[in-house]
Formats: sequence, C-alpha cells, structure tokens
Amino acid sequence: MAQGKLLYAQSGGVTAVINTTAAAVITAARAAGIRTYAARNGILGALREDLIDTGKESAAALRALAHTPGGAFGSCRFKLKSLEDDRTRYERLIEVLRAHDIRWFLYNGGNDSADTANKVSQLAREFGYPLTCIGVPKTVDNDLVVTDCCPGFGSAAKYTAVSLLEAALDVASMAETSTRVFVLEVMGRHAGWLAAAAGLAGKTPDEAPHLILFPEVAFDEVKFLAAVDATVKRVGWCVVAVSEGVRDADGKFLADAGRTDAFGHVQLGGAGPEIAHRVTAALGYKSHWAVPDYLQRSARHLASKTDHEHAWAVGEAAVKFALAGRNAVMPAIIRSSDTPYRWKIQPAALADIANREKTLPRDFIRKDGYGITAKARAYLEPLIRGEAAPAYGRDGLPRYVTLKNVAVTKKLPAWEPARS
Amino acid sequence: MAQGKLLYAQSGGVTAVINTTAAAVITAARAAGIRTYAARNGILGALREDLIDTGKESAAALRALAHTPGGAFGSCRFKLKSLEDDRTRYERLIEVLRAHDIRWFLYNGGNDSADTANKVSQLAREFGYPLTCIGVPKTVDNDLVVTDCCPGFGSAAKYTAVSLLEAALDVASMAETSTRVFVLEVMGRHAGWLAAAAGLAGKTPDEAPHLILFPEVAFDEVKFLAAVDATVKRVGWCVVAVSEGVRDADGKFLADAGRTDAFGHVQLGGAGPEIAHRVTAALGYKSHWAVPDYLQRSARHLASKTDHEHAWAVGEAAVKFALAGRNAVMPAIIRSSDTPYRWKIQPAALADIANREKTLPRDFIRKDGYGITAKARAYLEPLIRGEAAPAYGRDGLPRYVTLKNVAVTKKLPAWEPARS
Repeated sequence: MAQGKLLYAQSGGVTAVINTTAAAVITAARAAGIRTYAARNGILGALREDLIDTGKESAAALRALAHTPGGAFGSCRFKLKSLEDDRTRYERLIEVLRAHDIRWFLYNGGNDSADTANKVSQLAREFGYPLTCIGVPKTVDNDLVVTDCCPGFGSAAKYTAVSLLEAALDVASMAETSTRVFVLEVMGRHAGWLAAAAGLAGKTPDEAPHLILFPEVAFDEVKFLAAVDATVKRVGWCVVAVSEGVRDADGKFLADAGRTDAFGHVQLGGAGPEIAHRVTAALGYKSHWAVPDYLQRSARHLASKTDHEHAWAVGEAAVKFALAGRNAVMPAIIRSSDTPYRWKIQPAALADIANREKTLPRDFIRKDGYGITAKARAYLEPLIRGEAAPAYGRDGLPRYVTLKNVAVTKKLPAWEPARS
Repeated sequence: MAQGKLLYAQSGGVTAVINTTAAAVITAARAAGIRTYAARNGILGALREDLIDTGKESAAALRALAHTPGGAFGSCRFKLKSLEDDRTRYERLIEVLRAHDIRWFLYNGGNDSADTANKVSQLAREFGYPLTCIGVPKTVDNDLVVTDCCPGFGSAAKYTAVSLLEAALDVASMAETSTRVFVLEVMGRHAGWLAAAAGLAGKTPDEAPHLILFPEVAFDEVKFLAAVDATVKRVGWCVVAVSEGVRDADGKFLADAGRTDAFGHVQLGGAGPEIAHRVTAALGYKSHWAVPDYLQRSARHLASKTDHEHAWAVGEAAVKFALAGRNAVMPAIIRSSDTPYRWKIQPAALADIANREKTLPRDFIRKDGYGITAKARAYLEPLIRGEAAPAYGRDGLPRYVTLKNVAVTKKLPAWEPARS
C-alpha cells in the first residue's frame, strides 16, 4: 500500500448515478493500491470524523454499487461558508484529514461543493498540509459551468422524456371521454434543463409535450390557456410539462400560489397541480397531473448509458488527477461532436466552477416559449441515449446493494458542527 | 379467409399491457385466417360504426404493439346500462355487427365490460344473430373476481414497488439534513391492491415502505402520526405509501380534505400531498410527496414479464374460445401454485364476473393495518417477476408504435350515441 489515504464524500441532492462515480473512485483507487475512506453523510461525516472504510466492501458489492441509486454513504445539505466565516470548521476538517493521513480529498457534488473543495485546498496549503482536492461533478440540475453536462442529469432527463411519452400514449387513448389535459411537473427550480428534456418525447408540434413551461420564461396565463385550448381543439388533448420553478411576470413561483388550508396554513403546492387546476377552472377540460418528485432523480432502472459512462469516467479521472497531484480541479466532460456523439474528460479549475450557475441558453427555447429548438435537441439527445439497466432479482426488483459501511476507529475527541 | 370477422374493442382505463393483449388477439386471429376489426375509442366506435381494419398493420407493427403502452385503438369511459334502459344502443350495436358480418366480439376491459359483453350476447341470441361474445380481462385495479389477477396490474405493481425502493434509497441518504418523511401516492380508489404492491419493496419492518395506508383501513390520524414519529426516531426517516382512496372513519376521502383556493374552489387534492402536509404540520419533519398518476399505469418500460405473458395469453385464449363458440366467457388466469409460480387459462362465465368487485383480503393486511402479510407477499411477488423491456431507439426512447388505424368504409347512416 502506498502512503496516505483517499477520502470520498457525497454532497447535496443524490442522483441515479452518483454511486456509479463512487464505485469508479473506489475501484480506481484500489487498483492503484490506495485505501479509500468515505465520509458518512457527506461533509458532516468528515467534520465528525465519522468515516467509513470502503476496504471492507467486496468487489461484488462495488459492482452492484455502480448500479444502485441514492447515496450509498449518505449525503447532506450542509454548506461551508467563506474561510473567514467558517474557519473553525475548515480547520477541524484539516485536523480530521491529518489524523487519518488523508492525502487526497474527492468531493462529489455541485457548485457549492466545488467551492468547498477549493477552499479546503487553499487552507491545506496555508497549513502546509500535503493535500490534493478534487471536485467531482454531480447534479440532476445540470447547472455546472465549464463541464458540458453533469452526471445525474442524463438519467433524470431520460426518465422525464420516457415517462412523458408513456403517459401521453395513455392520455391520447382516453381523451374523448376522460382526461383532456395532462400536466407533468419536472424538477429544476432555477433552470429548465429537465423541462427541456421532456421535449425529447415528441418530434413534431402535435406530439406531446405540446407545451413546456420553463422557469426561464415568465408565465403568461392568458396566452398559456389559449395555447392549451387551441391544442385540445386541434389534437384532441394536450400534454404539458411544467418546471417546478415556473414563475409569473412578478417573479412569484406558481407553486406558491397562496392556497391555504382550513387553518390558514399555506398549502404544500406544486406547479403541476396548480397548472392543472387553472386549466380545468378556466377551460372546463378534465385534467390530471403527476409529480414524480424524487422518483425522477432516483430512477436507476431507467438510467441512460451515456450518463452511466460519464459518471464512471469522472470518478476514474478524479482518482487519476488526484494521484497526479492536480490540485483544485474537477474532471469536466468536454463534448467535441454531437453527431456522432464524442466526448472526453479534461481537468477544469475549481475556481472557474465554484458558485456559478449555467441556465438554459435562450436559443434552446422555441420562439413561442413553449418548446425546444433543434439546437436543444442536438445537445440533449446524446445524453439520454442507451440503457444501463441494473440486474433484477427473483423477487422482480432491481438488485440494489446496501453497503456494510464499517466505521473507521476515531482518533480525535468528539466534535459536532452546530447547525448554522 | 373464413366467413365472418372478429371485432376487438378496448374499454376503460388503459394499462401498460392492454396492447399486448390486442397484439395477441390480432396475431391469433390472423393465424386462423380471420379478419379483425378494432373499434375506435372502444364501444363508442362500435356504436358509431367507426371501425379500424387491423389487416392494414404489418407484422412488425404488431410486434411493436405488444410492447407499447396506452390503448392503440383508443378506449373510453362509456358504460352501457341495462338492456331495458339502453336498448336503443344495444340494438344499434347488433346492427353494426351485422352490417360488417362480425361473428366474434372481444371486449377488453373490467367488470363493466364483462357485463356489456354478456348483455350483447343475450341480445344477439334474442335477435337470432350468430355472435360469440368474449370478455378479455384488463385492469390495473386487479378487482375482477374469478381470475387470480388482471393483466395490467402486475406491471403497475412492479412500477410501484421499484419506484418506492428507489425513492427510499434517495430519502435514506439525505434524511439527516433534508427530507425525513416521503409519501408516495398510489392508484386504487376502491381496493388496496397497488398499495399492497408497494409493500414488496421492503422485506423487514425497518425497510421502506414503513407504513402503508390502505383504502380498506379507516385512517386514524393520531395513531398514524405516532407511527410516523416512532419510525423517524427508530430508523431516521419514514417512507409512506398511501392509496389515493384512503378515507377517514367517516368514509370521507382524504384527497377531498376540503382545501380551497383564493376563489373558494375546492382544490384539486391528492391523498399524498394531504398526508405529507399533515405530517409536517403536526410533527415538524420536512416531507416530500410524489404522485405518479398515469405514469404508474403506462410505464411499459418497467413491465413485468409475468404480466406481459398473462396479457398475451388472455388475448390468445380469447380468440381460441371465440372460434370454438364458447359464448359469454372470459379467459381467467387460474393459479395452481405460488412456488414455483404456476398458472393456466380457463374460461369463466361472464355472468359470474360482471359487476362484481374483488377487494384486498383482510388477511393480506398486517394486524396493525400498516403493512402486508406473508400471504400477500406470496400472492403478489410472482406478478412483478421478470422484465419485458421494450426495444429502444437511437434517440434513447422506447420504440413505441403508432398504428395506421385505417378506417373501414361505413355501410350505415351516421349515428351518435348521446351522452347519458
């Protein structure tokens, strides 16, 4: 075994393929003779010295891990602030890393995590502690800059497009005497990447989704209702994909439309039910709505092969960059061609990625605001291409693995990061 | 070609595999040299003489049809009443059948459709018109009597169990700092078959779903909230599967909890959001909810192989029974063994199936009312076993077929069944 260990941690909302990345990291480190620890529940585990020895997991478990959704070591929503504001925590982190002779820190998350990994690398240098920090990309929101796309997005996109296609076939066959308008709510509070992916389900304006509501386009109720009505009159039914983040002209989320329950509490909303409600109230058409919520980002059974390959590649490259001492970088996915789809991994500076957000380009949205352009399709299609189904058991369920997650013996006094 | 034609019609809510049955019917009839017409939009098409010549579809289209969700010829919610109350319509139906020399009528639906097929057979006999009527089972609700299960249920059940398993892995990995309680709403307004299927996702009480709310068990809010709280304290999180049809002790649907919008309209509800809302309001835990709605019954990408085989077998048997002159029967699925799972098709009298409903047996529900028993598991598991994935295209989407649906030339004056 070489000297030093590698620490891997998951951060933020999990995806269908974040464990694919985890499996790639552990497998690549093992091949290089490096021991890998994982932090339990993300950065919280690192701060608490609650570490997991992945060396206790079998090769078979790692293979199954590559096809298991969720975050196998636990993730968390816990953001470290600036070095000034959160210095105690950063210092504790270095202390934990030092206590376990961790020389490589791989942080698998979004732009917040890129920022954290970057700051940890700065502090380690300041302290003279030899540490290489790597950000590993992950997010269904697809909102990281520099990288062409983010592992996790392709599978959620495939789930969205396939689900919409299937539900639309259902609606089409029943429309004369039943539901005329179907609304599918998709994730993406700030950016319409998944709403755009819904658009892959149809190739022509008369194929579902007939209308997409993006967070980037202010909701105009009068225009929208007229478009729904025109679609029902022309096609016979209307399928709408709506981003959870759609807002009206005043910037107010439709999901927060202010409905209250009998006690005056604001009701747990949803842009999907809200849109369906307005359509039925205004036009009289029977409507149905679906909100897949977490199903959308955890549907490993419908993962895209491209996404699976990206997720594995960024994990493998992260280890390679780490062992080569490429500090404060992230393996970015660089696309060189749409058709045929060609891509490679290159290191990108964490400083260029941290705290920035990539929204849907305006030229991905059709002029009327309700659909995607050919340019969007050329970008999105390769990302949902191919299947990477898990193995299934005799019980009819995917064989997802639960790891042993054996704790590493602590060396430091207990320490609990108070919630900010 | 033999004399006479066969008419096939789809009825009521469609499923992931009703087209598998359609493909089996057309394929078996072709093999026997019989021409098959399909009614457009179910019984409405039969009444309007809006018939489709399935002879125009290629063998490749029929193969794709077997893996395409929705209802390829259209279905409808349109129930014929008693022979006395709806005599004009029944007579019109016989007139259409006679005009096109239709000698076999196959009606693919639930217990209403079994009733209609039975009545049509009676009237044909009364009129001296030689017609063999067959009911073909289909419903995600699994509520037909005599048959052990209904094609369409197994795939919706598999979708429910897999989706819950995946979402639970997501929730488990994030629970410490994010969602503690996740609620999945499942279909089944009157019977808890799909709610029970959610129970297949977990094998032990600490595995999700921790709590199932059945329509058969009156909702006791105090007891339920205590159970949620105990689960969160013990496991760290809690996953709930709730039937859309769950009711309180007064028989009132939770989905109709009476929330109103700013205009005083009753809000489009959902038992899932309602339960999540109550949990957060009472216990303070962050909650999320999902309502897959039509996604659940149209998820052909996740069809169960057993269900696919049942759907094909009932279609094939329906043609066999029809050509053998077995009037007023339905091919029923008869189970002879759970382990190994063994089943066969037998004809059952439509009179024994019509207008009856099979609810979840009490001994399928755990004593505390929140889970399933070993008996339920032994019944359900074979039905979600095996995969029957569709082929996928280069665009990353399943290759679902849209049929040509070429209309048969009309021979009768136009006739429109006024809505009752």
